[in-house]
Amino acid sequence: MGKMPAMTKPRKITWDDLESLAIGCGILGTGGGGDPYIALLNVQKLWRQGCRFQLVDPFDLDDDDLAAEAAFMGAPLVSQERLESPKFCARSVRAMERHMGRPFTAVMPGEIGGANGVIPLMVAGVMDLPIVDADTMGRAFPEMQMSSFVIGGIPMCPMTISDIRDNEVVITETADPVWVERISRVICTEMGSTASTCCAARSGRDIKDHGITGTVTQAINLGRAVRRANADHDDPVAAVLAAERGMALFSGKIVDVARRTTAGFLRGEVAIDGLDGDAGSRFTVDFQNEWLVGRRDGELVVTVPDLICILDSVSGESVGTDAIRYGQRVTVVSLPPPAVLTGPEGLKVVGPQAFGYDLDYTPLHGKRTS
Amino acid sequence: MGKMPAMTKPRKITWDDLESLAIGCGILGTGGGGDPYIALLNVQKLWRQGCRFQLVDPFDLDDDDLAAEAAFMGAPLVSQERLESPKFCARSVRAMERHMGRPFTAVMPGEIGGANGVIPLMVAGVMDLPIVDADTMGRAFPEMQMSSFVIGGIPMCPMTISDIRDNEVVITETADPVWVERISRVICTEMGSTASTCCAARSGRDIKDHGITGTVTQAINLGRAVRRANADHDDPVAAVLAAERGMALFSGKIVDVARRTTAGFLRGEVAIDGLDGDAGSRFTVDFQNEWLVGRRDGELVVTVPDLICILDSVSGESVGTDAIRYGQRVTVVSLPPPAVLTGPEGLKVVGPQAFGYDLDYTPLHGKRTS
Repeated sequence: MGKMPAMTKPRKITWDDLESLAIGCGILGTGGGGDPYIALLNVQKLWRQGCRFQLVDPFDLDDDDLAAEAAFMGAPLVSQERLESPKFCARSVRAMERHMGRPFTAVMPGEIGGANGVIPLMVAGVMDLPIVDADTMGRAFPEMQMSSFVIGGIPMCPMTISDIRDNEVVITETADPVWVERISRVICTEMGSTASTCCAARSGRDIKDHGITGTVTQAINLGRAVRRANADHDDPVAAVLAAERGMALFSGKIVDVARRTTAGFLRGEVAIDGLDGDAGSRFTVDFQNEWLVGRRDGELVVTVPDLICILDSVSGESVGTDAIRYGQRVTVVSLPPPAVLTGPEGLKVVGPQAFGYDLDYTPLHGKRTS
Repeated sequence: MGKMPAMTKPRKITWDDLESLAIGCGILGTGGGGDPYIALLNVQKLWRQGCRFQLVDPFDLDDDDLAAEAAFMGAPLVSQERLESPKFCARSVRAMERHMGRPFTAVMPGEIGGANGVIPLMVAGVMDLPIVDADTMGRAFPEMQMSSFVIGGIPMCPMTISDIRDNEVVITETADPVWVERISRVICTEMGSTASTCCAARSGRDIKDHGITGTVTQAINLGRAVRRANADHDDPVAAVLAAERGMALFSGKIVDVARRTTAGFLRGEVAIDGLDGDAGSRFTVDFQNEWLVGRRDGELVVTVPDLICILDSVSGESVGTDAIRYGQRVTVVSLPPPAVLTGPEGLKVVGPQAFGYDLDYTPLHGKRTS
C-alpha cells in the first residue's frame, strides 16, 4: 500500500462485509447507481487474488490527504451488458493523477448507492489504496452535480472520464456544476452510455467539512440487517425500516413498466397494484436512473431527496430501475435523507425542481440526527 | 513577441493582405470553415489596435518549435449568430499551453478554408505569435481527423475545446483519430454547435514532414487575383481558375436549398438550374459544412477531396453552405487538391467513402506538382 492516511484505527473490511455492502448499497441506491451484484463479484475476485480493503474514518484523514471520487457513469441498463472491470474503473483515477501530477492517498464513493457504492473497492484493490467511510450523496442520484460538495460550494473540476476503448477526457473547467454534468453526459453517451469517471481530488479537509460521513459503514450495517433477517426467517423489509428508521409506503405487484434509455439516462415510470392492505389502490413511481417521485392513486406521496426504495417483498433486497419487471411483488419504502440534502441549498441541487418537477419538497421524515 | 522561431526572413502580412486572405480562404473553404468576413473584421480591428502579423516559412522553423493549430469548430450557420472573438479563439490555445506546461512558439491554421484560415491571425494577435505558412488540409473539411497529420500518422491528442461560457475540456487520449472527432463533436454540439479548439502541438519537424505548406500565401495570392480582376473589370471567376489551375463545371441560378443543422454539422443539398451554355441542365451539390459531391443531371461529376467551390458569378467570391440561397447566380468550379489527399492513405481519410458515399474518387484534375 502507498502512503497511508494518518489514521488512528483503519478498520478492515471483512469478506462477510462485502456482500452486506452490496446489498446495503442496492437499497441506498434508490433504484439506480447500477446493479451492485457485478461489482460485488469483481471485489470478491480481487479478494481471492489477495486484495484486502481498509476503511478509513474521514475524521482520521490529514487535511491534505487526497481522495479519488471514483464512479461509473451512464445508463444502468447498459452496464448490465458492458461490464465494469477494476482496471477500467481505475483508469479515470489514474488519468486524474496524471493531470494533477500528484498521487491519491485514498478512494471514496461519490455515491453510496448501487454499483457506485462498491466500485471504489475495485479501484482500491487495483491501486492499493484505503477507502474513506463517506460519500457525497448518502444515496444515489442520476446527475454529477447532485453532490454535497456542490451544495457546499466545492468545485467539481477537473473531472476525468474514460471508456474501455482508451478514450480519455479531462474536463478542466466549467461555467457551473451543471455544465460538468452536461458535458460529461454527452461524452458518456457517445462512449456508449457507460464510462468511468473521477471527480476533482477531495482533500481530507473538504471531506470532513462537506462529505456525508459514515455511509460505507451505514450500507454494510443495512445489508447485514437484511441478510440476518433472511437467515432468521424474520421480515427483511421490516429489518430495513428498523435499520434506517424508514417508512413503508405501499405493497403490491408490478403491473406496468415504461422504460427508455435516452440521453445517457434510463427514464420511465412503474405502476404497482396494491395487495393485502393496499388492495384496490395503485402506486406509481417516476424514475431517472433513480426513483424520483411516488404517487398513490394520483396523489403525491413522496419526492426526492427522500430516499424512495422499491424492495423485493420477500427478500428485502432492492429492485433497480433497470431490472424491475411485470409481476414482481414489491414494497415501496422511504428512508430519511441526510440533512445536508434537505436544507435550502440542498434542495436547489437535489430537490424535485432540480429534476424538472413543479413540486415543492414536503419532508416525509422527521429531521435526521446525523 | 515571445521567442521567435529561428526563421531566415519572416514575411510581414500587410493590411492589404488581410482582405485578400479572407477572400482566398473563402474560396479554398469549399463552402465551409465558417464565413471569413467576421474573422477579417476582427483581425482588422486588432491591426488598428497595433497588432502586426508575421508569416513564417515552415522550412525556417526549428524542429522543436511548437505551433498551435487553432480553429473554430461547429456549424457555420451558428457562428453567424454567436460571433467569434480573438480572446475566445485563444482560450483553447492557452488551455493547451497549461496542459503541456510549455508555451507555443507559433500559430498555424488547421484548415486554410473559411474563417478557420483567418482565425489563427486573431490568436496570433492576442498571443503575440507568428503564423506558420502551412495548414493540414489545403482547403476546409468538416471533421477533425481529416488532416494531413492524421494521414501521416501523427497523433491528434491531446486536443482542447472550449466555449464562451468558460467551459474547457482536454481530450487526452482516444482509440483512434475518428474518436477525437466523435467526442469533440458532441461536446461542441452541447456547447451550442460553436466552440474553439486547439489540436496537439505540432513540432517544426512534423509541419515540415506532414503539413501542407505555403497555403497561407496561396490563399492571399488567390484573394488578390480575385480583387484585382474586380478592380480591373476582368472576369473574377476566370481569375480564380487561372490562379489555381481550376476548372469551371457549371453556371446557373440557385433554385433549391435543403439545409439542416444536425449533430454539430450543417448538412443538405443545393440545386442549380443552368444558364447560358448550361441552360436546360441541373447541377446538384451535397454538403456537410463543405461541398462534397457534385452531379450534373444526376450524373456524378466531382467528389471530395477535389475542391468544389461555388462562386458568385459576378464577384468571384465564395458562397458558403451557410449563406447560399434561392436566386443567386453562381458558378461551380473545381480546384485541384493537394497531392497528399489523393494517395491511398489520403483517400481513406478524406475520400468520398470517408463521408459515407459508396463512390470511388475519380480525379478531375491532373497531378498537382506541389
